[in-house]
Amino acid sequence: MRMSKGVEWTVHCCTLLAALPEGTNMPAARLAEFHAVPAPYLTKHLQALARAGILDSDSGPRGGFRLARPAPEITVLEVVEAIDGREPAFTCTEIRRRGPAGGLAASEYRKPCGIHALMDSADEAWRSELAATSIGDLALYVAATASPKAIGRAAAWFQQISVRESKTS
Amino acid sequence: MRMSKGVEWTVHCCTLLAALPEGTNMPAARLAEFHAVPAPYLTKHLQALARAGILDSDSGPRGGFRLARPAPEITVLEVVEAIDGREPAFTCTEIRRRGPAGGLAASEYRKPCGIHALMDSADEAWRSELAATSIGDLALYVAATASPKAIGRAAAWFQQISVRESKTS
Repeated sequence: MRMSKGVEWTVHCCTLLAALPEGTNMPAARLAEFHAVPAPYLTKHLQALARAGILDSDSGPRGGFRLARPAPEITVLEVVEAIDGREPAFTCTEIRRRGPAGGLAASEYRKPCGIHALMDSADEAWRSELAATSIGDLALYVAATASPKAIGRAAAWFQQISVRESKTS
Repeated sequence: MRMSKGVEWTVHCCTLLAALPEGTNMPAARLAEFHAVPAPYLTKHLQALARAGILDSDSGPRGGFRLARPAPEITVLEVVEAIDGREPAFTCTEIRRRGPAGGLAASEYRKPCGIHALMDSADEAWRSELAATSIGDLALYVAATASPKAIGRAAAWFQQISVRESKTS
């Protein structure tokens, strides 16, 4: 069972966007540069986040992506589901209705299959954990724990691209 | 994020084996027949369970698979991990070490990445849920909730194959 790479990329992107001054648009190419991931794939994932109402985007020279809502109001689960979907990890094919013991009327299967119910409750435990943490929480955690040198480098990069972008616009 | 079909099949198989009289061996072909799933694929999965110490098997005319331990001592998590592996759903590629803010000495990254830590704790919540239920629990749940008609059909099938098998041995 695997989450897709896009989850790692986009949660990092949202966390970075939460740390930027309000109203900052960050082009997909810059987000890709900062995280050293391929821009075309990242752009597709960012667009999925925009469709899910997590990001807003503007086009034009000052355009780019920004969080559509305050970071404390965006859960990590929302980002995960925008990329990997909402379907539970377990697909029940109602095996119990098949084979020599199956084939009965639908009314005989009103109680949920115990295996299906257990898998759903495990899925629920997983989603609850991701729903209990917001992008705002992650940004605070990074601010509190990341290497000050790394934060310094991130700030230098941000100032440098801001200068570059204001020169070209 | 998806669990593989083999998980559904083998958890059902283990639950059936837990409901059979102690010492009953069930050939892979019969387990496949009962669950109406393809025997060659199911056999591969049952062999994975045997390698994981969940099932024992005997060859010969009375051979087949049986639980290697009492059903209350086999957790659903063990079965899931025998099929889908133990790797967490989230793969951290240490994105934070890359790009313009990265490239620092390893000592700058001693604190875990917050995103990685959160994904691991969600994974842990999921596994805990599956570890808290045993194959014995599932067998009891099925005995308590399955359609009596379905249980009757399963019993009729079991008696019929027992007769078939004792005739051919």
